[in-house]
Amino acid sequence: MPEQSSTTSFVPGRCGVVGLGLMGGSFARAFRAAGREVFAWNRTRSTLELAEIETVTGELTDDVIGTCELIVLAGYPQSAIDWLREKADLIADGAIVIDTVGVKRVICETCDKISEGHGWTFVGCHPMAGTQYSGFAHSRATMFKGAPMVVIPPKMGDLERADLLERLKELLAPCQFGSFTLATAGVHDHVIAFTSQLAHVVSNAYVKSPTAREHHGFSAGSYRDLTRVAQLNATMWTELFLDNADNLSDELGSIIDSLQQYKDAIDEKDAPRLKELLAEGDRIKREVEGR
Amino acid sequence: MPEQSSTTSFVPGRCGVVGLGLMGGSFARAFRAAGREVFAWNRTRSTLELAEIETVTGELTDDVIGTCELIVLAGYPQSAIDWLREKADLIADGAIVIDTVGVKRVICETCDKISEGHGWTFVGCHPMAGTQYSGFAHSRATMFKGAPMVVIPPKMGDLERADLLERLKELLAPCQFGSFTLATAGVHDHVIAFTSQLAHVVSNAYVKSPTAREHHGFSAGSYRDLTRVAQLNATMWTELFLDNADNLSDELGSIIDSLQQYKDAIDEKDAPRLKELLAEGDRIKREVEGR
Repeated sequence: MPEQSSTTSFVPGRCGVVGLGLMGGSFARAFRAAGREVFAWNRTRSTLELAEIETVTGELTDDVIGTCELIVLAGYPQSAIDWLREKADLIADGAIVIDTVGVKRVICETCDKISEGHGWTFVGCHPMAGTQYSGFAHSRATMFKGAPMVVIPPKMGDLERADLLERLKELLAPCQFGSFTLATAGVHDHVIAFTSQLAHVVSNAYVKSPTAREHHGFSAGSYRDLTRVAQLNATMWTELFLDNADNLSDELGSIIDSLQQYKDAIDEKDAPRLKELLAEGDRIKREVEGR
Repeated sequence: MPEQSSTTSFVPGRCGVVGLGLMGGSFARAFRAAGREVFAWNRTRSTLELAEIETVTGELTDDVIGTCELIVLAGYPQSAIDWLREKADLIADGAIVIDTVGVKRVICETCDKISEGHGWTFVGCHPMAGTQYSGFAHSRATMFKGAPMVVIPPKMGDLERADLLERLKELLAPCQFGSFTLATAGVHDHVIAFTSQLAHVVSNAYVKSPTAREHHGFSAGSYRDLTRVAQLNATMWTELFLDNADNLSDELGSIIDSLQQYKDAIDEKDAPRLKELLAEGDRIKREVEGR
């Protein structure tokens, strides 16, 4: 028989969203579009008031926290951790708490520790979606439609984990994720340094060339694509990058070395070497895409 | 009174296309869709035969060359130059010859010289459009719709140049370019090293990371965008890069330096410095886009 708990039991399907930025706002809109009750907290009150007009059922006050079956921590890494530490005792037994943060080692380690001795479960999550714009104004109910969701399961037996995943999938059904990928926090952070973090650094570095200000009338799709995520939230990405410094530094070292090889071949007018470098990248890209 | 010429006079609006790859095929399709007569030459005969079924009026044989008002050199840089040198005497007085090559100094200098003493005019052109796929099979009539066209005018008086541009615009009307940008070959090559060539090198280098093969289920739009043009025609780009080696080497040096600055800040866990580097890129991107 389970141990008696002082926390209230949750209302099935009720969601709490902590932080109404691009991600939190999109979760809230998706839940609401599916008829779910959504209670939200946001540091900036005016955003919450705006959201309450059509998206959010009400404020995620301390007395509402214990009625949520799912809580989504959608703020910056440190603010997500701070909220969970402060509110840990108020969360209902059996509830699931997820985050949406782009790094997972520091988050999962800390939040798993916070969850110890409580009846709710923390599951690290990283929805692989977004735009170069931030804030509630750019959030939308269809943000996650078809996108991969990376899930970091807590440490527990395989069967229990499978049940938890099924429940989580059901709770997140309104988001219409295209796939759920299970990973360890370590694998996630290693891979994400390449697929997401490096893309943002490279794109941001790309526009630092003095030529960036002279290109009007000369740019096509390749420039647009390479620089789309140059526009970014510097505060948030600084925190994410430093929480994954080891992996991101490795990826940066790797691309700097690669770029230097092309530069050397070009400076030496070494056509066969340059062609082989380009053909190798072409080959890898085709292989990776399964073409 | 103009000097007597031995070349035949052209059929108004008749187009010749030299090389039926992605670019040449798209020009041919656009001309044909607008009801123009299109004669084409292609090294690989099977492609020409395929094109003759629905796109091309006939083969651009030596006796047809002199009947074309517009000739589009759509092959690789060296092959475009070779064709023009061999056929220079066959081209009609008053005809306009353009190329579509992605570098302009070497092309324009050589082709301007070839045109000396002839009654036709060479105009360097670079349509800022394309895809990561090459070949006639991927060409389409709408390839250039809305795209910028960069034009390198030949050396002549301003008024004459304006007339020429109007005639060229009319001849290219079926392509529906979004804008025509006039530039010198030097400015073109300087800017294109940044907007197009660097994008291809960076994208191609991006997938060289060992992590590239492990990312299934972890990638979102930023990775897709950064690596879209990693797949490329290595032979063609080698020639284009080496014809613009000075500019491209400068751009590569610039982005390598920039990337090293982020890496240093990350390795030193210098949050204020990293944030400033990111904010600077964000600022430039917004400025350049006029936001």
